[in-house]
Amino acid sequence: MPGYIGHRDEILRRLRRVEGQTRGLQRMVEEDAYCIDVLTQISAATRALQAVAISLLEDHLGHCVADAVRSGGPERDEKLREATAAIERLVRS
Amino acid sequence: MPGYIGHRDEILRRLRRVEGQTRGLQRMVEEDAYCIDVLTQISAATRALQAVAISLLEDHLGHCVADAVRSGGPERDEKLREATAAIERLVRS
Amino acid sequence: MPGYIGHRDEILRRLRRVEGQTRGLQRMVEEDAYCIDVLTQISAATRALQAVAISLLEDHLGHCVADAVRSGGPERDEKLREATAAIERLVRS
Amino acid sequence: MPGYIGHRDEILRRLRRVEGQTRGLQRMVEEDAYCIDVLTQISAATRALQAVAISLLEDHLGHCVADAVRSGGPERDEKLREATAAIERLVRS
Repeated sequence: MPGYIGHRDEILRRLRRVEGQTRGLQRMVEEDAYCIDVLTQISAATRALQAVAISLLEDHLGHCVADAVRSGGPERDEKLREATAAIERLVRS
Repeated sequence: MPGYIGHRDEILRRLRRVEGQTRGLQRMVEEDAYCIDVLTQISAATRALQAVAISLLEDHLGHCVADAVRSGGPERDEKLREATAAIERLVRS
Repeated sequence: MPGYIGHRDEILRRLRRVEGQTRGLQRMVEEDAYCIDVLTQISAATRALQAVAISLLEDHLGHCVADAVRSGGPERDEKLREATAAIERLVRS
Repeated sequence: MPGYIGHRDEILRRLRRVEGQTRGLQRMVEEDAYCIDVLTQISAATRALQAVAISLLEDHLGHCVADAVRSGGPERDEKLREATAAIERLVRS
């Protein structure tokens, strides 16, 4: 079971809202909205996506990584490196 | 006419692809995909959204801001400040 | 003359403050400060650096790019592409 | 002992290099370097700072957070929330 299992409904709701934001963006562009207004909405959608990522990451650290840490062994280091790489991709994107 | 008028179809195509990515994310979460795989896809969608923003910004600088600069007057400073604020929101998000 | 010539003293002052922040970070690490406190100070230094970048960018758009736009010709497109690439590096870093 | 204790020398070396980069930036501005060249160096310094942060975070997750997870109890949730907040500041900066 993934770490976010306890928050799945909330995460799906937030992803649906981001999907709605990307549809709203298409409507804006079809209606020749002003560039800056489109950019403001893109920043809002980006922030919403990253907030979902932060929330998933907290669940992942508290469940999957915590389990691997408790079990010890090689899986511990592997899970830590994998989580760090995911954080790095988030920071860079 | 907005600065992106010459690239509207391409921008709409890219936004539709991001919409597809957000639907793919929902499917992953519904199927209990591994947290890290979901995070990787969120980073990809974020990068795609920001690439659209960079492209819109280039059009905006080359058209709307360039026109205001050529016309001079108070609109010049206003447009520059507005564009800078949009860049700041992008960097912060 | 670079676009920031009118703000050079202010930019130097801000860069000196960032230099001080990086020295403060070294002191914290030498004194075994708590990881999270070091991370908070790194975020502060990063934000300070990016604020300098945003300020330089505004000057650059208002002077160097504006001049190229007014002169028209191939330099116009070159300067716009160069500025956009710099914005992209900022957003990605 | 902080989580980075085993990497302290390397972290100090990297922070000293960032300090050198911020001094190099001041020299560039004093010598009226081209705006875009200054921006490129700011992006490099920002990326270097964030790489130190990612490295500190990995140590923190592998030591401080791992210890709290193993001990269980209320400290576990507190440490996880604290680490998530630090990641959020990094992503936002």
